Amino acid sequence: MLVVMKADATSRDIEEVVRVITELGFKAHVMPGPTRTAIGITGNRDAIDSSHFENMHGVAEAIRVSKPYKLTTLDLKPEKTVVRVGDASIGDHDLAIIAGPCAVETREQTFAVAEVIRNSGAQFFRGGVFKPRTPPTAFQGLGEEGLQILAEVRERYGLNIVTEVVDEHSVGLVERYADIIQIGARNMQNFSLLRRAGRSRLPVLIKRGLGATIDEWLLAAEYVMIEGNYNVILCERGVRTFSDYNNETLDLAVVPAVRSISHLPLIVDSSHGAGKNYLVTPLARASVAVGIDGLMVEVNEPTSTRLNNVQELTPDQFMQMVSEVRAIHELIFP
Amino acid sequence: MLVVMKADATSRDIEEVVRVITELGFKAHVMPGPTRTAIGITGNRDAIDSSHFENMHGVAEAIRVSKPYKLTTLDLKPEKTVVRVGDASIGDHDLAIIAGPCAVETREQTFAVAEVIRNSGAQFFRGGVFKPRTPPTAFQGLGEEGLQILAEVRERYGLNIVTEVVDEHSVGLVERYADIIQIGARNMQNFSLLRRAGRSRLPVLIKRGLGATIDEWLLAAEYVMIEGNYNVILCERGVRTFSDYNNETLDLAVVPAVRSISHLPLIVDSSHGAGKNYLVTPLARASVAVGIDGLMVEVNEPTSTRLNNVQELTPDQFMQMVSEVRAIHELIFP
Amino acid sequence: MLVVMKADATSRDIEEVVRVITELGFKAHVMPGPTRTAIGITGNRDAIDSSHFENMHGVAEAIRVSKPYKLTTLDLKPEKTVVRVGDASIGDHDLAIIAGPCAVETREQTFAVAEVIRNSGAQFFRGGVFKPRTPPTAFQGLGEEGLQILAEVRERYGLNIVTEVVDEHSVGLVERYADIIQIGARNMQNFSLLRRAGRSRLPVLIKRGLGATIDEWLLAAEYVMIEGNYNVILCERGVRTFSDYNNETLDLAVVPAVRSISHLPLIVDSSHGAGKNYLVTPLARASVAVGIDGLMVEVNEPTSTRLNNVQELTPDQFMQMVSEVRAIHELIFP
Amino acid sequence: MLVVMKADATSRDIEEVVRVITELGFKAHVMPGPTRTAIGITGNRDAIDSSHFENMHGVAEAIRVSKPYKLTTLDLKPEKTVVRVGDASIGDHDLAIIAGPCAVETREQTFAVAEVIRNSGAQFFRGGVFKPRTPPTAFQGLGEEGLQILAEVRERYGLNIVTEVVDEHSVGLVERYADIIQIGARNMQNFSLLRRAGRSRLPVLIKRGLGATIDEWLLAAEYVMIEGNYNVILCERGVRTFSDYNNETLDLAVVPAVRSISHLPLIVDSSHGAGKNYLVTPLARASVAVGIDGLMVEVNEPTSTRLNNVQELTPDQFMQMVSEVRAIHELIFP
Repeated sequence: MLVVMKADATSRDIEEVVRVITELGFKAHVMPGPTRTAIGITGNRDAIDSSHFENMHGVAEAIRVSKPYKLTTLDLKPEKTVVRVGDASIGDHDLAIIAGPCAVETREQTFAVAEVIRNSGAQFFRGGVFKPRTPPTAFQGLGEEGLQILAEVRERYGLNIVTEVVDEHSVGLVERYADIIQIGARNMQNFSLLRRAGRSRLPVLIKRGLGATIDEWLLAAEYVMIEGNYNVILCERGVRTFSDYNNETLDLAVVPAVRSISHLPLIVDSSHGAGKNYLVTPLARASVAVGIDGLMVEVNEPTSTRLNNVQELTPDQFMQMVSEVRAIHELIFP
Repeated sequence: MLVVMKADATSRDIEEVVRVITELGFKAHVMPGPTRTAIGITGNRDAIDSSHFENMHGVAEAIRVSKPYKLTTLDLKPEKTVVRVGDASIGDHDLAIIAGPCAVETREQTFAVAEVIRNSGAQFFRGGVFKPRTPPTAFQGLGEEGLQILAEVRERYGLNIVTEVVDEHSVGLVERYADIIQIGARNMQNFSLLRRAGRSRLPVLIKRGLGATIDEWLLAAEYVMIEGNYNVILCERGVRTFSDYNNETLDLAVVPAVRSISHLPLIVDSSHGAGKNYLVTPLARASVAVGIDGLMVEVNEPTSTRLNNVQELTPDQFMQMVSEVRAIHELIFP
Repeated sequence: MLVVMKADATSRDIEEVVRVITELGFKAHVMPGPTRTAIGITGNRDAIDSSHFENMHGVAEAIRVSKPYKLTTLDLKPEKTVVRVGDASIGDHDLAIIAGPCAVETREQTFAVAEVIRNSGAQFFRGGVFKPRTPPTAFQGLGEEGLQILAEVRERYGLNIVTEVVDEHSVGLVERYADIIQIGARNMQNFSLLRRAGRSRLPVLIKRGLGATIDEWLLAAEYVMIEGNYNVILCERGVRTFSDYNNETLDLAVVPAVRSISHLPLIVDSSHGAGKNYLVTPLARASVAVGIDGLMVEVNEPTSTRLNNVQELTPDQFMQMVSEVRAIHELIFP
Repeated sequence: MLVVMKADATSRDIEEVVRVITELGFKAHVMPGPTRTAIGITGNRDAIDSSHFENMHGVAEAIRVSKPYKLTTLDLKPEKTVVRVGDASIGDHDLAIIAGPCAVETREQTFAVAEVIRNSGAQFFRGGVFKPRTPPTAFQGLGEEGLQILAEVRERYGLNIVTEVVDEHSVGLVERYADIIQIGARNMQNFSLLRRAGRSRLPVLIKRGLGATIDEWLLAAEYVMIEGNYNVILCERGVRTFSDYNNETLDLAVVPAVRSISHLPLIVDSSHGAGKNYLVTPLARASVAVGIDGLMVEVNEPTSTRLNNVQELTPDQFMQMVSEVRAIHELIFP
């Protein structure tokens, strides 16, 4: 931490700050400047709470240098994490593709889509059975019945199942039927849910919240990891900005930025932020070009009616997209 | 819903949209314009899913006219809701003041602060016992032990207790000890938690999420109300913007904006978005001047050390603030 | 500046950073921590360009401590600036009220509004004659003819004239007819225009850009002041956020925040960000309650047709608002 | 335009809205719904000002259907615009690459970088000589002397010159020496400057403002085009969001979104929003993968000292990036 004094801070103000630093058991480094003095702090193991200093007399600001997270960092584990699920993996050389309908609606619809996904060579199937839909009157998913359909998909098509949980009860059910637990953007800071997922044997995919900073996202991962579950996958899906032409703005720079500090695998969901069918494939290409470990995308049969979202790809669009993103991935990671 | 056609849409494209509208059981109103045709839809009872039209040939966009919420609106209940708790109320003529420390740390600290709050004439005491702290290693609150301290505060100082819940288990505990259930900003879209609070006999205070639109905030309230609990209080606490000098930006225009469509009482938390002690009182004055039903603010003993946040007011600052905001409230609502 | 090294930085990386600091003529303070080393820099007079360090081997980040502005700061001038215009002033004890129509349309309309403003006791009249309207086909203002009307308003009603400039040519004209030069939000970083205004004898009112940080806003003021014109007034008018129910979000915390570092007077325009008539008065009350030096607000005759914006107040609404904000101002600054 | 009435609007309120529509010379289409009535308006040629209706009694909101821009749209000109400069072009099948240093510092530095650019096969050279630097004390560029160096670059290396203008005076100079006029993000709504560029014979490259919506960006292009200059290139460079780890967030979805409504060529500047060297190449790849007409990127000699920004690529990094983005471009547009 660096405590920056005001220009009119007195030597007594400075002494007082030094005294508090010393009392906390740390070491103070006074650095006088031409207009103002800064005081560096060393000797701390964890991030220091800036509140110790911010309201002290003569203090202009307290700047945090250390980050509050540890387990997610390359400092702790310099080699990249590879999450393995059966024969498949996320974080390895190959591009993982996670595709499927927004929601599991019927066995027929789900199998039809699963066949498309399998034929594309993708190894992961997604489909919501607990839907955290914003209007309470909207279809909330098939629940356990949907999980049974997903388990059949795994058996029949050899696909690994990724599905979202919304509370502790649903984690228990998903553990019985699926392969990867997904924490949605709306629950990224539902710490009880994160802790519960941390006690699971399944890998956990954490979507970035719509208003979450990198620090908050990595700390969500720490909540899972601190319980002993190190198989965490981070998924960018767009952030809230002033943009008025789509749902959210995909923040692709976050991929190399998080990669430079964390060992966790990074994927992008190019469907939800897009919010419009014609934006999904260009954003999928861009996501793969920026250098991700996996791509999540929504695909559905055009005949499906209940929850078919405007951002779902048709099977034809999906097959075309897969061939484009695979080619780009091979180009970057030959 | 209004479906706007592209300039080059053919009459066949238009007929196709009309056919879909008719099939859905609604009525189509074709309105040809100089460059493009718009098609109004009437006859629907609920909001129509725009996905029916957005990917159709020749369609430029589908504009939603109806709102997806009902129970929260003045359309359904034109008179303002007053939430009553014992002798106190929120939404009535008087300004409700909800104050207390960020976290309940010890019985002594809590009682000392409670005495200040009682002496100010405020009728509500706040204090966290389940703290959804972003770093998992940070102090997470005293839990049930903290609730027991809060129950003593109620008895000894005659204050009504407002405290945050983080999962279904904590709702059960809070119901036993406190008076108002608080849903924090991070859990505003934790729909399982909202439903559980909706089955409680206690009023529910819902903080606006850092990235939540008005629609999403009101829909969170609908999740509670649809379960039968109509005693909901909405609390603005700041939204995520590009601002780099404080935590979040307090969105005060949201108060008259929500008031114009909803009957629910509105309060502002002027502490959390501020994130700095010296910003809290000016923002509290501004919040009351904009016309709110209640003010939530953090107050603590300066000697407290564990979780004392930079935004907490000292008792002296709090007493001064109360006298200022009361005077402003009387000025506006004489 | 503080250079934070990566956890795996070698002692050679650290030496190299120290060497560059020394070469630049500054002093390096090496502070080893438990996981990473930080290096403080002193001896610089101006802000150091972080690019010297950010791409060096082993460097995690370079944190700027000094601010890039000077003339606007309390460090340089601890007493508050009062801008005087004839008998009136901005930054003094009284609340300055600047009101008038969005655009000067006709002599009759302008005089009718001016009479309302004068009767309210306000001392400043605003009215656009060079309108930077976003669609190029929209009415762009009366130009010099409008300035002549404004000059008549000054003479007839004793009001000081505030009007916007859009290029160097318009500055020359405004200097001939008006009392305060207004730089609009869209031109806040038009540095040629700021420099030209800095060579004027008239005070300059600078609206904050819709995406401008505090640093950028104060640096815009520095552009004016560096040319010798110290009569600068800062005007907050709302920033771009994800809000979808009004134009922009008024950032009221910026008032105490800028006050804590700058001596310049601060006012708020409560009309433009509001973007809706019914939001203007509540936001005006909030602005005054937060503690500003002046309020800018749009007022027009309801019969006016050409540019009457949805956010303009009617004369009756304006008179009511003035009485409310004056009472709040007296309450806070008795 | 669609005027949506409140649920409690009377038939008299509705008649009054119809009356105003008729008076304005348009046609009203009353569409009664289950809870509220909507009134469509047809017969208008231009966008209608919503202020005619928004403050009328019983009106909930006025929703704009028509867009305020015309010249930029595919409605007016269905075929894509190709901007030709000498032998080179932007908007054609090939990917245009515009590269060079942030600022022209010396003849030696500029020539050294130009040689790298030429060797890469790129056809456009960029370099600032009028630098709108935020701190007024920062280096503001070499001015006409810099333009003379750029003119030599064109002659010697056969590169087309793109350089930024900041006021009318600089447009005159740039017209004499360069090939494409660049309007920077900070001047995107400097309408006097846009009009002046519209009267030039040179193509105009318009960077999107940091807080600009698509509508505002296209309207900036209309300002240029309405003066008769149809050679306009749009350049996305990142928008202001809550992101705290880089300068701005690159909004890549804007590329397919604008393409779906406008015929103008679209390029991306992957350097400025990135703000850090290691983010530039991944974002350049993503930009090309999303499907752009050209890429702007900053390249400089590592020995350069004056203005070398943290986001500039070294010549080696640039050559590597060019080979990657060319391969991606060929993959998408074979």
